[in-house]
Amino acid sequence: MRNVPSVVPWALASAVVLALSATPGARQPAVARSAIVFIGDGVDDHQLTIARNYLLGAGGGFSFEYFPYRAGARVLTVLESDPSIPEYVGDSASGGTAIAAGVVTSRGRIATRAGNGQAVPTMLELAAAAGKWTGIVTTSSVTDATPASFVAHINRRFCQGPDDMGPTPTDPRCPEALKANGGLGSIAEQIAVSDVDLLLGGGYRHFDQLDESRVSVVRRARDAGYRLVRDVAGLDAIEGAPGKLIGLFGDDTLPVEWVGEADARARPVEFESDGSVIDPQPFRCVDNPAFGSRPTLEAMTEFALERLGAAPDGFVLMVESASIDKQAHQGRPCGQIGETRALDQAVRVAASFQEQHPDTLILVSSDHGHAAQIIPWPSLFASRAEPQYPPGKVARVRTLEGGVMTVSYGTNENYLEEHTGTQVPVFARGPGGESVRGLMRQSDLFGVVLRALGL
Amino acid sequence: MRNVPSVVPWALASAVVLALSATPGARQPAVARSAIVFIGDGVDDHQLTIARNYLLGAGGGFSFEYFPYRAGARVLTVLESDPSIPEYVGDSASGGTAIAAGVVTSRGRIATRAGNGQAVPTMLELAAAAGKWTGIVTTSSVTDATPASFVAHINRRFCQGPDDMGPTPTDPRCPEALKANGGLGSIAEQIAVSDVDLLLGGGYRHFDQLDESRVSVVRRARDAGYRLVRDVAGLDAIEGAPGKLIGLFGDDTLPVEWVGEADARARPVEFESDGSVIDPQPFRCVDNPAFGSRPTLEAMTEFALERLGAAPDGFVLMVESASIDKQAHQGRPCGQIGETRALDQAVRVAASFQEQHPDTLILVSSDHGHAAQIIPWPSLFASRAEPQYPPGKVARVRTLEGGVMTVSYGTNENYLEEHTGTQVPVFARGPGGESVRGLMRQSDLFGVVLRALGL
Repeated sequence: MRNVPSVVPWALASAVVLALSATPGARQPAVARSAIVFIGDGVDDHQLTIARNYLLGAGGGFSFEYFPYRAGARVLTVLESDPSIPEYVGDSASGGTAIAAGVVTSRGRIATRAGNGQAVPTMLELAAAAGKWTGIVTTSSVTDATPASFVAHINRRFCQGPDDMGPTPTDPRCPEALKANGGLGSIAEQIAVSDVDLLLGGGYRHFDQLDESRVSVVRRARDAGYRLVRDVAGLDAIEGAPGKLIGLFGDDTLPVEWVGEADARARPVEFESDGSVIDPQPFRCVDNPAFGSRPTLEAMTEFALERLGAAPDGFVLMVESASIDKQAHQGRPCGQIGETRALDQAVRVAASFQEQHPDTLILVSSDHGHAAQIIPWPSLFASRAEPQYPPGKVARVRTLEGGVMTVSYGTNENYLEEHTGTQVPVFARGPGGESVRGLMRQSDLFGVVLRALGL
Repeated sequence: MRNVPSVVPWALASAVVLALSATPGARQPAVARSAIVFIGDGVDDHQLTIARNYLLGAGGGFSFEYFPYRAGARVLTVLESDPSIPEYVGDSASGGTAIAAGVVTSRGRIATRAGNGQAVPTMLELAAAAGKWTGIVTTSSVTDATPASFVAHINRRFCQGPDDMGPTPTDPRCPEALKANGGLGSIAEQIAVSDVDLLLGGGYRHFDQLDESRVSVVRRARDAGYRLVRDVAGLDAIEGAPGKLIGLFGDDTLPVEWVGEADARARPVEFESDGSVIDPQPFRCVDNPAFGSRPTLEAMTEFALERLGAAPDGFVLMVESASIDKQAHQGRPCGQIGETRALDQAVRVAASFQEQHPDTLILVSSDHGHAAQIIPWPSLFASRAEPQYPPGKVARVRTLEGGVMTVSYGTNENYLEEHTGTQVPVFARGPGGESVRGLMRQSDLFGVVLRALGL
C-alpha cells in the first residue's frame, strides 16, 4: 500500500492537480454534502517553505497552495488560570479544539472550555447527529491531541488511555474524567463508544489497556460495534464491509516516511580549534528504514474516502499529518519535509475525490506554528572578525534542485523545540470555501464547515 | 507633524478602515491610473503576528490584512557565483529588485542581474517614461537597498554614496560603478540625476559627499532640478510648489517611533545560582525619546500623495517602513512593533486616498522574512527536571490587552539576527489587485503593477 517515494513523478502529478485546483469551481454547488478537513500539525508559512524548497524547488508550490481560497488564521489561546487573558502560543489540543469545536480554550484541553471544563460539541458529533458519517485519519495515535479534539472531551490531552489516568501518587492527571467520578474516561475509552464511523492511525497501546472495570478498551470498542484491524492486510480484507471500523497500525505515533541520510538532523554548531565555525555537512533526505508496512497517509485517506463516500447523506472526515510537528520538535528537517509531502499527497487524493463529488468542501490548515527557520549560511555578517553562528541547532539540507538550505532550530536549548505563536495559513476549495478569506480566527473554521454543510 | 502614539483611538480608526477595506471594490475601475507599493522591510506572517498581538490584541488585524486580495510570495534569490543555483534567504537588495524590476537576482544587487550585472529597468523608470510621476518614501536612507532598487542600478548595495566607492586598499567595493570606469556612480549620485519626482527619507550624509569630480552630490541634485529640504518646516514651506524634491530628515536611517521601556530589548536568558531559569522581566513599549522632529511615515506618505496626486497621468509611489527589519536585526521587539504600526498608519492614508481615487492600486508586501518568533514562556517542557530555555536572546513584552508575549531571537549568537527564508505575504486593493492570489513569486509583483497601469 505504500508508495515508493519517487519525487519527480509526484511533482509532475502535483502540477496536474494544480491545474485542476486553479479553476475556482465554475460548477461549484451552493451547499456541501461532505467536508474533508486537513490539519498539517505545526504547519506555518515557514514550514511550508522549507518543504517546498526541498521537494518542488523554491519556485514550486503544493497542490493546496493553489486552492482558490486562502486566508490567514490567528491562533488564539487563553490562560487556564484566567481565560480572559490571552496566551500567545497554542498547542495541538487548543488548536484542534478551535477547529473541531469553534471555541478558544487553554493549552492541553480537548474540546472543553478553559476554566470550567465544560464540554463543547465537535463538528464530527454535530455531523453524526445530522445523519452524516464521520471519520478520522492521522499518522499519530488516534488518541493524540488533534484527532482527540474531534471526538473526545477531557481536561488534559495526556490522558490518552486508562493507564494515563489519575490520580496516582506521582502524577495525578484526569481524576474528573474517571468514570468512578462521573467522567467519560480516557480519550481511548471515549473513542471506543463514540459515533465516529472510521478511525485510522496509530495508538494501539492505549486501547490495549484495562479500564476501571478491568475491561480492555479493545473489548469496549468491539462491544460498541467497532471492528478493529491492525495492518494493511486487515484493512484490505474489510474493504466494502459495512459497520464501524478502527484501524491501528502501530502502538503510538506511526513511523515517519523520511529521515536524513545516516539519521542526520539538526546539531549544535561546531568550531575549529581557532574558533572559526565549521560548515555543517549538507545531507539529503531518504526513506525511513523503520517505516515498516504501515499504510501511508495517502493510502489511509484513499481508504477513508472510498468508505465514507458511500454515506447516504455525506460525511465529515478529518485527516492529520501529525509528525510535521513531532519532527520539528526534534530538529529533523527530513522528517518534516517527508510528512509535508505526505500531507500534499493525501490532499491530492481528496482533490481527485472532489473532482467526482463537487459537493465536497476541502479545508487545509494547521493547529499552530513551529520553530524551524531557513537562515543564510554562512551568516549575512560572516565578514566580521568574530565568528557569526546561530546559537541553536542547525541542519543543512541538499535540495533536489541543487541548492543547500540551512534550517535553524533556535527555541530550546535542552530538549525539544517549542511551538511558535505565528498565524497559520488556511486553504479551501469547494462549496463554502469562499468564506475562507482575509484574516480569520482559527476557531472560525468550525463555522465555515458547519455553514457549508447547512448544519 | 508627528502623531502622538495614542493606541486605542488608532485601533478604532483601524477598525473603520477595515470596514471600508472589506468591500472588494464594487466600483473598481478596470485600469489603474496610479499605484502605491508598500514594503514592510523584513515583514512576514510571524512579524505581523507579533505587532498585531501587541497593538490590536491577538484577535485584531491591520487594515491591509483585510484587503480583498491576498497571496503568499516566494522570495527567490540565486547565487552570484552561479545564478542557476537557488539561495534560500534573500535580502533587501534582492527582494527590492524582485519587486521593483521583476527579476530574481543575488543578494546585495540593486536592479542588476546576478552574474553579469546587467541593469534592469524598474517600475519607477518605466512609469516615468510613460509620463507618470514617481516617488519614494522611506524611514531608511533613501540610498538604502529597498528604495535604491527602485531608482538605481549597482552591483553592491553598500555603495550608497561617493565615500563608499572603491577600490580602496582595504575594501574594494564598486569599481565598475565609478564614472571614471564608465559607471553610473554611487546610489546617491544616481538618485541626484534620476527622474524620480519626490524622495523622502533619511541619508543626508550620502549626499553631503564629493563625487569623483569633487562636486558634492547635493550640488549635483540641485543642478539636476531637485529642491532639497531637511526638516518638516522645509517640507511645509514647499507644499504646492512645483518641481522635483528630495527631503532628507536625518543623516542615515531615521529614528524609530517606539523603544522598550528603559531601552529594554531581547537579552540572553539568565539563571539562578541553582541553575533554574530566571523569568525575563516583561516590559512595555514607549515613545522613542530620540525620535526628534522628523516626520512620521504617515506624514511623509500624506505629503507624497498630496503632491503626486496632482500628476496629470497618475503616479507610482513606493513607501517603505524600513526599520521593522533593522529593529528585528537588533532584537528590539518594540522597535519592530512601532514601525509596523507606522506601516499600517501609512497604508491607511493610502486607503483614504484610494477612497477618493478608486483608480489606484495599493499593494502591501515585504522583501524577506525575519528572525523573531513568539514562543511559550515558560517552555512547553518546563516540567522536566533540567532547565528548559531558548538558546538565543529573549524579550517579554506586556501587551495592551493584558497578556505577556515572549519573543525569541535565535538566529545569531554574536551580532545581528539573520533574515529568514520564509515566504512573505502580499495584500492588494484596487484595480489589478485581483491578480494577487494563491502562491506567487515576489518578482510577479512587478508585473502586477505594470499590468494594472496598462504599461
